Amino acid sequence: MKISLIREAHERIRRTIRETPIETSSSLNSLVGAELFFKCENLQRGGSFKIRGAMNAVLSLSDKEMRGGVCTHSSGNHAQALAIAAAQRQVPATVVMPNNAPLSKQKATADRGAKIVLCGPTLEEREAACARVQQESNAVLIHSSSDPRIIAGQGTIALEMLQAAGDLDAIVVPVGGGGLASGVCIASQAAKVYGVEPEMADDAFRSLQTGERLGPRPPLTVADGLRTALSERTFSILQEGLETIFLVSEEEILAAMRLLWERLKLIVEPSGAVAFAGILRHKEVFAGKRVGIVLSGGNVDLTGETLGQLFR
Amino acid sequence: MKISLIREAHERIRRTIRETPIETSSSLNSLVGAELFFKCENLQRGGSFKIRGAMNAVLSLSDKEMRGGVCTHSSGNHAQALAIAAAQRQVPATVVMPNNAPLSKQKATADRGAKIVLCGPTLEEREAACARVQQESNAVLIHSSSDPRIIAGQGTIALEMLQAAGDLDAIVVPVGGGGLASGVCIASQAAKVYGVEPEMADDAFRSLQTGERLGPRPPLTVADGLRTALSERTFSILQEGLETIFLVSEEEILAAMRLLWERLKLIVEPSGAVAFAGILRHKEVFAGKRVGIVLSGGNVDLTGETLGQLFR
Repeated sequence: MKISLIREAHERIRRTIRETPIETSSSLNSLVGAELFFKCENLQRGGSFKIRGAMNAVLSLSDKEMRGGVCTHSSGNHAQALAIAAAQRQVPATVVMPNNAPLSKQKATADRGAKIVLCGPTLEEREAACARVQQESNAVLIHSSSDPRIIAGQGTIALEMLQAAGDLDAIVVPVGGGGLASGVCIASQAAKVYGVEPEMADDAFRSLQTGERLGPRPPLTVADGLRTALSERTFSILQEGLETIFLVSEEEILAAMRLLWERLKLIVEPSGAVAFAGILRHKEVFAGKRVGIVLSGGNVDLTGETLGQLFR
Repeated sequence: MKISLIREAHERIRRTIRETPIETSSSLNSLVGAELFFKCENLQRGGSFKIRGAMNAVLSLSDKEMRGGVCTHSSGNHAQALAIAAAQRQVPATVVMPNNAPLSKQKATADRGAKIVLCGPTLEEREAACARVQQESNAVLIHSSSDPRIIAGQGTIALEMLQAAGDLDAIVVPVGGGGLASGVCIASQAAKVYGVEPEMADDAFRSLQTGERLGPRPPLTVADGLRTALSERTFSILQEGLETIFLVSEEEILAAMRLLWERLKLIVEPSGAVAFAGILRHKEVFAGKRVGIVLSGGNVDLTGETLGQLFR
């Protein structure tokens, strides 16, 4: 995929998304020993970067293609984003969500007017349920990470980061299905791109190590947005474009999230803190560098029970 | 006090504070039926607007005046702000804090290099402990709200809001000791200024109603930053400048805080959500208006226990 596709995507979506701010923190710079630029996609429409890809996909389709509406399967943020994009285009959206997706994400998706179909939490169950929906409704499937229009949309984050922060030595992103990481690899120009993945969802790490695309581990990590696996397309883009993938533990994800809440006063969901967790674990790699970090989303169940678990 | 003092304060402090962003939310605009401009002082240095006044006070003093350092009593945010300002001027700071101040605020103040003296939670206990410190150390007392240099510093918020958002019909602020509200009254120009106070700390409300300055209620509200009372100076400024004071319940404060976390993805402390709670309770007053709201701070204990209580 070429960077020109990402520039075209940016032209297509820029009036319907927010150019999110970049935050900095002298205390976090000191802690890491690097100059950090946090791209606040938690402040994006729908609470995550996913609107970029979803809007690009929906705005790319012809009226005829859209007749049956759109469908997808998603643990939450892509679901909500596709619902927003479909509503803007005034076509129906159906979303298959695993029954362990955060309630706030299920509710937000329904509030945007999408029809929700719940299924079991494994990738197989999600794909099977989505195939049924597609057959019944004749909707266009907009896959959350392997669709090239999605990848191009997510890559627009890197364009904005490089424009606003100037040259960067590195951009660090979380890796779930690899749509974000792929788009950023294509758009990153001179910046090296590092992926970070939870140890408990390390399919991309193992796939890149072995050179063979592996399926996901059981979807158990607290980083609910990263419970998916690479597709053939994102696997191949990441093999070529990614510097490396770092792994982080559940404790490291929660500690990074807590630091971001404390110092930036920003609500970042567990998946959104994964990239920063990777930097905290590998400070030596980033010492003295100018580093862009994607805070990918901010959708957290704000209940005492969930918060009590996240901030034990 | 004249607006020129506030403009001078802004010139004095602007290189050492952050011009905080103003956030907007179409969903919150719809909910209230007004155009809302949230001034994000939770993103300010030290996590609250208090650095404005503290920095103005400390930068106003001569080296000779500063020989004994500075001291104050504060439930937290002014303490932390004074510690930052004193460190910048390289003079010692001693802060008397009530023993029920959030641990995060106590720790942050100590981390900034201030000496902390704990005391009982009532205003009498705080003032007595502070007088002792002053006597022993010969430090300059920088009162958190009645000092004119503090009031002038806090008023700079209104200058920035009107500059960035354009003309506003109203500016809504929380009322504790009245330093912020007083500064905003003086700097607000054509905008009407509304104060909001917790029902459980309604000394300013009762004082303005009766025309006689009353002492504080027992310091029990969840809005820990507003557990103080008006001084003679702030009482007199608010009598003249404030449109009115609205009261809000503890439940309304927590509901407003939760909405801000959910929709703006910003961490706002209970005191920082009080102004918005007042708007939610009195939507009819603000219908169709352009309304500035001060989100005064974002310092919350991020522990499971505290969050469990705030998000019951």
